[in-house]
Amino acid sequence: MVLEKIEKVNDIKEIPPEEYETLASEIREFLVEKISRTGGHLASNLGVVELTMALHLSFDFPKDKVIWDVGHQAYTHKLLTGRKAGFDELRKYGGMSGFPKRKESDCDCFDTGHSSTSISAGIGLVAARDLLGGDEHIISVIGDGALTGGMAYEALNNASQLKKNFIIVLNDNHMSIAENVGGMSEYLNGLRTNEVYTNFKTGVKQSLNRIPGGVHLANQLKKTKSGIKQLLIPGMLFEDMGITYLGPVDGHDIAKLLDVFRKARRVKGAVLVHVLTKKGKGYPPAERHPARFHGAEPFEIETGLPKNRRKKANYQDVFSTCMVKLGQRHEHVVAITAAMPDGTGLKRFKNLYPDRFFDVGIAEGHAVTFAAGLAAGGIKPIFAVYSSFLQRAYDQVLHDVCIQNLPVVFAIDRAGLVGSDGETHQGIFDLSYLSSIPNMHIMAPKNKWELSDMLKFAVEFHGPIALRYPRGEAYDGLREFRSPVVYGKSELLYEEEDIALLAVGSMVKTAVEVRRRLKEMGYSCTLVNARFVKPIDIECIKMLGREHKLLVTMEENVKSGGYGEKVLDAAAALELPVRVLNIAIPDEYVEHGNVDLLYQEVGIDAKAVTGRIIEQYITIR
Amino acid sequence: MVLEKIEKVNDIKEIPPEEYETLASEIREFLVEKISRTGGHLASNLGVVELTMALHLSFDFPKDKVIWDVGHQAYTHKLLTGRKAGFDELRKYGGMSGFPKRKESDCDCFDTGHSSTSISAGIGLVAARDLLGGDEHIISVIGDGALTGGMAYEALNNASQLKKNFIIVLNDNHMSIAENVGGMSEYLNGLRTNEVYTNFKTGVKQSLNRIPGGVHLANQLKKTKSGIKQLLIPGMLFEDMGITYLGPVDGHDIAKLLDVFRKARRVKGAVLVHVLTKKGKGYPPAERHPARFHGAEPFEIETGLPKNRRKKANYQDVFSTCMVKLGQRHEHVVAITAAMPDGTGLKRFKNLYPDRFFDVGIAEGHAVTFAAGLAAGGIKPIFAVYSSFLQRAYDQVLHDVCIQNLPVVFAIDRAGLVGSDGETHQGIFDLSYLSSIPNMHIMAPKNKWELSDMLKFAVEFHGPIALRYPRGEAYDGLREFRSPVVYGKSELLYEEEDIALLAVGSMVKTAVEVRRRLKEMGYSCTLVNARFVKPIDIECIKMLGREHKLLVTMEENVKSGGYGEKVLDAAAALELPVRVLNIAIPDEYVEHGNVDLLYQEVGIDAKAVTGRIIEQYITIR
Repeated sequence: MVLEKIEKVNDIKEIPPEEYETLASEIREFLVEKISRTGGHLASNLGVVELTMALHLSFDFPKDKVIWDVGHQAYTHKLLTGRKAGFDELRKYGGMSGFPKRKESDCDCFDTGHSSTSISAGIGLVAARDLLGGDEHIISVIGDGALTGGMAYEALNNASQLKKNFIIVLNDNHMSIAENVGGMSEYLNGLRTNEVYTNFKTGVKQSLNRIPGGVHLANQLKKTKSGIKQLLIPGMLFEDMGITYLGPVDGHDIAKLLDVFRKARRVKGAVLVHVLTKKGKGYPPAERHPARFHGAEPFEIETGLPKNRRKKANYQDVFSTCMVKLGQRHEHVVAITAAMPDGTGLKRFKNLYPDRFFDVGIAEGHAVTFAAGLAAGGIKPIFAVYSSFLQRAYDQVLHDVCIQNLPVVFAIDRAGLVGSDGETHQGIFDLSYLSSIPNMHIMAPKNKWELSDMLKFAVEFHGPIALRYPRGEAYDGLREFRSPVVYGKSELLYEEEDIALLAVGSMVKTAVEVRRRLKEMGYSCTLVNARFVKPIDIECIKMLGREHKLLVTMEENVKSGGYGEKVLDAAAALELPVRVLNIAIPDEYVEHGNVDLLYQEVGIDAKAVTGRIIEQYITIR
Repeated sequence: MVLEKIEKVNDIKEIPPEEYETLASEIREFLVEKISRTGGHLASNLGVVELTMALHLSFDFPKDKVIWDVGHQAYTHKLLTGRKAGFDELRKYGGMSGFPKRKESDCDCFDTGHSSTSISAGIGLVAARDLLGGDEHIISVIGDGALTGGMAYEALNNASQLKKNFIIVLNDNHMSIAENVGGMSEYLNGLRTNEVYTNFKTGVKQSLNRIPGGVHLANQLKKTKSGIKQLLIPGMLFEDMGITYLGPVDGHDIAKLLDVFRKARRVKGAVLVHVLTKKGKGYPPAERHPARFHGAEPFEIETGLPKNRRKKANYQDVFSTCMVKLGQRHEHVVAITAAMPDGTGLKRFKNLYPDRFFDVGIAEGHAVTFAAGLAAGGIKPIFAVYSSFLQRAYDQVLHDVCIQNLPVVFAIDRAGLVGSDGETHQGIFDLSYLSSIPNMHIMAPKNKWELSDMLKFAVEFHGPIALRYPRGEAYDGLREFRSPVVYGKSELLYEEEDIALLAVGSMVKTAVEVRRRLKEMGYSCTLVNARFVKPIDIECIKMLGREHKLLVTMEENVKSGGYGEKVLDAAAALELPVRVLNIAIPDEYVEHGNVDLLYQEVGIDAKAVTGRIIEQYITIR
């Protein structure tokens, strides 16, 4: 085993070149074996094994610094920097993160998670280095998918201006999580196949060679610096922006990678190294289905099939079915995704109504304003987006949709704690950042049927409206409660006295269990499904406040700016003679781990909530 | 007067071509005359007089649709669509907006205000048109400055993919508000001067013409579609992304503009028309100082000098001086702006410490993550940014700065109501969106000395920290109160009993007046300067809650998620026997107008606040 020789950073430099290929194979075997047990990002990591090895052979970490855009492709980097043992507890609570973390290793220089940040962060480190008089290399590794994010372009625009040494590695696998889209993608594809330029180069050369004096002209063309030289080489789009372009290079050929990095180190200013890789490389099921093996659940290595078959539908499945029906019923309903057709459940809609489906790339800001434009033009857009990614379009929601009060529907997926992806992906801020926006409306369904009902309600609604639902298995309890969704109204599930639980969306399920426990202990307990977070149901709160001693709000969102504060505010304004207890996520980032463990950790599981209610209730009586 | 003949949309089509030049002059005179009285955006509007005329001559509004990026350059458009009379009340409360507004005219199809949104909105309208079977033209007019915003690039990337007819007019004046920056700017400059390409084109042609067979080759080069043709024409960067490029065209030559729009209408798919204009065109003071005449106060037409000389320093002046001192004292302090070196007051810092000053272009998202990179690299970045524009970087603050707890300083300018720019520019959300972010700290100074003290405190601070201060004249009252800024601590200004006012930043000044009125009426009144909005000063609230009957929070921010809700929350958790009244901006957008009028309109002026306090206090006793 060559891999055994690698115990810490730079050990790879002791490996003789003839063993590189073996090492790459062993790394792939290791990754497939480990991830088949723990789950995790597989396809992207298999794609960058040689690229990561070449970076570690070419540079001197931790003195030199590499920033992994998005960051889920840093597994080989973790392996080569002494974190082999961590893979047994990968993405588990208390275990190794699936993303680069500065607190995990001094070889991780910048935490990532969301897309398209690495060039900006890299330029920051570059500017800091030059101010402090350092000479380390800074390398940002960004995928072609992440290059559709506008921030990457803002950074490229800035990189060329600063004229500082900086290496950008474009890891081009021709994909986002799904297939990549847009003009830039087509442009890169041109470079990838290299057809246009090769044809041009050889065409012109041959033509010129056939002509008397042509050779001289060809040489002259090559010499002229500013214009013509660039016309004869690929990557002119980058060169036009002032960034030297090197490539494309086969990202699975270590010798060629070492060669191109040698060249890149010598370039003055910003240089972009275009590396071609294949997602899932070396593991046939992942090569065939890179999207499925993007973030994989534990699987059987032989077949690539998941170990644990799902028994129940996910919220995403419910959303998917509902969207298909809505598409059929309303010819003006269109669906938008920012590079997440699979994850959000829009694939079937896409297949059935290709003209009404828009994948805009990793570009949430654009997606929202594009939706605003559609709505202003008389169409009903539904933007399906993960809660943590909609954070990127806060201003577009506020400025482009809500000022004009445009009827855009936000289907906010992965709302609440998402689990193993950790801090960067927890969807625990949306109730707060959306609540502060005038004209916005927010709902959260208690179970799978209500998701469907709320989506229908949203499509008929005349202004901006969001519904937020969690990742994973859809709750199928409380089927007997299916009163029509009425604007601004909560749903009373069980009416008793003493304690009233007001639960938002996913927390209704928890509230059912809390109520069971409270009743077991002899307490009398009302349960209300909030349904609307904005506007809150003042009448309901008034009624509850008069008839109970304690109001308990429950939400899977940070407390600041969330539902609980609104209810407290209303109770205070109405001078209700009732105590209000807000159950919410405390003011801190929540790390990765199993969601049930995380609920306990932040104190919003049924046991903790019950305990806090009793503690509070006792002081009242 | 030719201008007199224009009373409504399309009247311009009745004007004979020989009068176009006269009309342009009259429009310029009109604009200069009106804006010299009301104030408003001058330089950008003078730059697009002929461009707007040509659009109105070439297209059929309101059937066709034009989206003005940023929108402050739409004055001539307003003039040509029957809103001449509105200029007397331009940007005044109840008067005509300085931006396009759908509710103002059916010729305004999409509201704008922030930069770089027009292409996204345009694509939305394009997609809606095609779904509804319309045939109208959609035109987005975007400046070269706005093209540094990543969202514009996300949209360009998407535009080419959709393959729908869509006209993008690039209004290239070589400026943001200040000089434009970055690789794209340099690229456009190349096109502008056309040097590279003209040289190449003529060079190759001449060379080929001199060679036997060369003419044939030149023709062949022109014919080949995919590659070589693009190499012979300018705008290849856009063509590479799949967008047809036309131009550059002199934006002050109506005949040429009409010609290029005729061509643009016939292009299949997305087309970009590159128009060269001059900011301030036709009014010498604005041509010389386009940045000063960006958003101008009323001025003397002859000299271009402001009518009302400022007597007191602005917060921006105070910030400017303080930054210069900090730059001198701390060699690791750097300043960042997103295209606002003048507005934020960073110009002197820039001149003194050019190596430590970064203008990243209109790119707030990148600016924040760039700052995070600098902080991770051991430098202390201060990002000076308008409150409403920081909304664009909410995720970058949350994801790139705060998860890693990086010591970035946010100097949030234009916080609170800004006045005549209206809804899109009011800085009334920052306390809410920043409060919800873990690890973030927020301060607000009561007067100009405290701004300086807080900035010093922030520079020494170990984590992410923001200070927010308003547009305009710095409050110079309460000079006698200058206790040291202590982490998380409020400042007790006057201690009495009954009523306690807790005011945030700009509202301290108002609170002084409220207290004066209350005391005049015989009430006893404590006044606390909150200083910290996050964390709030629990000890202070506890003390106040025990010794007063009514706590009144005062903030120039929306209520949802703001300071008041935090105080109420703390009072409830501590079970303090006190009523809490939150004075904040209600849950609605605030239109343009004089700031003092707006205070009254939203009920946060001294009179309204005093009234609400008494109303509340009476019910307690």
